[in-house]
Amino acid sequence: MAKSPEQEHPVQAFGWAARDTSGHLAPFKFSRRATGEKDVTFKVLYCGICHSDLHSIRNEWGDAMYPQVPGHEIVGVVEEVGSKVTNFKVGDRVGVGCLVGSCGSCDSCSSDFENYCPKFIPTYNSIYHDGTMNYGGYSDIMVADEHFVVGIPDNLPLDAVAPLLCAGTTVYSPLKYYGLDKPGLHIGVVGLGGLGHIAVKFAKAMGLKVTVIDICPEKEQYAMERLGADAFMLSQDNEQMQSAMSTMDGIIDTVPVVHPLLPLIRLVKSHGKLLMVGIPDKPLQLPAFPLLSGRKLIGGSLMGGLKETQEMLNFAAKHNITSDIEVIPMDYVNTALERLERADVRFRFVIDIGNSLKSTA
Amino acid sequence: MAKSPEQEHPVQAFGWAARDTSGHLAPFKFSRRATGEKDVTFKVLYCGICHSDLHSIRNEWGDAMYPQVPGHEIVGVVEEVGSKVTNFKVGDRVGVGCLVGSCGSCDSCSSDFENYCPKFIPTYNSIYHDGTMNYGGYSDIMVADEHFVVGIPDNLPLDAVAPLLCAGTTVYSPLKYYGLDKPGLHIGVVGLGGLGHIAVKFAKAMGLKVTVIDICPEKEQYAMERLGADAFMLSQDNEQMQSAMSTMDGIIDTVPVVHPLLPLIRLVKSHGKLLMVGIPDKPLQLPAFPLLSGRKLIGGSLMGGLKETQEMLNFAAKHNITSDIEVIPMDYVNTALERLERADVRFRFVIDIGNSLKSTA
Repeated sequence: MAKSPEQEHPVQAFGWAARDTSGHLAPFKFSRRATGEKDVTFKVLYCGICHSDLHSIRNEWGDAMYPQVPGHEIVGVVEEVGSKVTNFKVGDRVGVGCLVGSCGSCDSCSSDFENYCPKFIPTYNSIYHDGTMNYGGYSDIMVADEHFVVGIPDNLPLDAVAPLLCAGTTVYSPLKYYGLDKPGLHIGVVGLGGLGHIAVKFAKAMGLKVTVIDICPEKEQYAMERLGADAFMLSQDNEQMQSAMSTMDGIIDTVPVVHPLLPLIRLVKSHGKLLMVGIPDKPLQLPAFPLLSGRKLIGGSLMGGLKETQEMLNFAAKHNITSDIEVIPMDYVNTALERLERADVRFRFVIDIGNSLKSTA
Repeated sequence: MAKSPEQEHPVQAFGWAARDTSGHLAPFKFSRRATGEKDVTFKVLYCGICHSDLHSIRNEWGDAMYPQVPGHEIVGVVEEVGSKVTNFKVGDRVGVGCLVGSCGSCDSCSSDFENYCPKFIPTYNSIYHDGTMNYGGYSDIMVADEHFVVGIPDNLPLDAVAPLLCAGTTVYSPLKYYGLDKPGLHIGVVGLGGLGHIAVKFAKAMGLKVTVIDICPEKEQYAMERLGADAFMLSQDNEQMQSAMSTMDGIIDTVPVVHPLLPLIRLVKSHGKLLMVGIPDKPLQLPAFPLLSGRKLIGGSLMGGLKETQEMLNFAAKHNITSDIEVIPMDYVNTALERLERADVRFRFVIDIGNSLKSTA
């Protein structure tokens, strides 16, 4: 008979879990494996709330397992390292993002793209190599193979850096891969939210001209004054959109719901690139001719590999980039998720695990 | 008052034109400009029939002007060159493809991508710099600025080379631009027709592994034995399609009607490229997640620039590549268009203009 989550492993752990598709989170006792020879065990101090946490705990992607402890923007301080760990030591500030394992031998793994390994293991709602359930960062302690652990640069505050582990790498990676990181290029960032606001910061640090495109006029001031965007457009303002036709080298489209692609395809120049990082749950309408007539492309991108995530953190450190956050205590999490659903946050909730997660034991 | 097509220019010309949206072609007297200082005037010997000719004469793209002489796969022999022409002389074998003009100064023009110039001038159903109507290659004589004329290599027969000027460059260009021309890569060619069969020939000459995907089982033998494809799959055979998942580096999708993209996205590996060169008249369904989860891209491509078209012809000459054609006399053209509509041709009709176009004058 399978052991209970509490008895499965030797190390006692405590977090908040969803038990069913209501997605309601409540205190949960479970256990973590002992530090293996290549493992890093760390005390979790902060964990960001990603929109995918909401999808996952409510089984909106159809693959939910329960109990489910979400969270894949996890940062903390190392408490123990295995005998073969070479990159980290006790006391180091570290993080774990969206994945904790991969096959290690496929083309993607061999090219530092573990995130595209067909067998990659997400940080939670997944089964680890040893056959046991993975639990995420809404919890007091974390253990992961050092390959999937990144170092947090000294100058970045732990709370505001947490969202970079998913949101940050998700927007940094396509800018680099699709060559939109060259000074002087002009990009559009569609959707000023958790992903979009970090995309603006990275793009500005790369020397790009940035136009923010959103449906919400209230975001203009924030985009221009706080984030340093060069321009702001309302996607529903046809005149603005028309006047910007064929002016952009690329677009980072963060919108996670169905939306028209044609106006965005029109914004990019010939040979321009429309990069999608949001995941609408239904297919979008793709008109062929506008894509062909300018040799444009629509590219997808999904977070980053571990090497690139560390590179992104180092870039963020150099340019002093973190996420704009609202820090919340653990017991506020269900309210935060409700607010996240109606996009009522600027721009990322981060749970203060270290100071607010109290075991009821 | 505007002059009649016959009186507009000094050089008498004769061809077949559509007069209305029926698209029915009939003999037509018109005129061409005298050879300008940078112009090349040539006797038309052959002209390929492209599927876009059909769309255009019937006004299926909504921009038809009449009378309309179609044809943009035009080859012949030079009869006169202007005083400033440097690349061609009387007697040269030459061709004109899809465009006869562009602005000459934009980013695209400056990068040898005249085909992406926002002001590019199609070979027919368009207005030239001098304000007069352009007529295509279903006619006895052609005149064009030498920049838009290509040289036909000596070893390629004029009839079978004609389709390369549109169909050839349309499939060669994306293979090069998107980096799918490296020996050892594996590509799929979707739709074995006028474009597809040339794509297979080019891809094999580049050293690629080629899988042909079509809906028609009768094409398997032709693909494998005549074109040297490595594999053939029926797109409606789920088992075959399933077994080939994530095996291709890229796909050239030539299908000009609405069709599902998801099965094609699934065929390409992570970081693979689905390249569309057909132009369905309605939007396609684009599922986002399959694109994101493998960092795949969907790219468009529209013929090639002039430099690339010449490069393509030189490549074809080196590898002895031409189109598989059915040569027809001029007065068969309306029947040929009907047969083209039901894909009853292997694989391209070419009109024997030189021997069969007789002026009724």
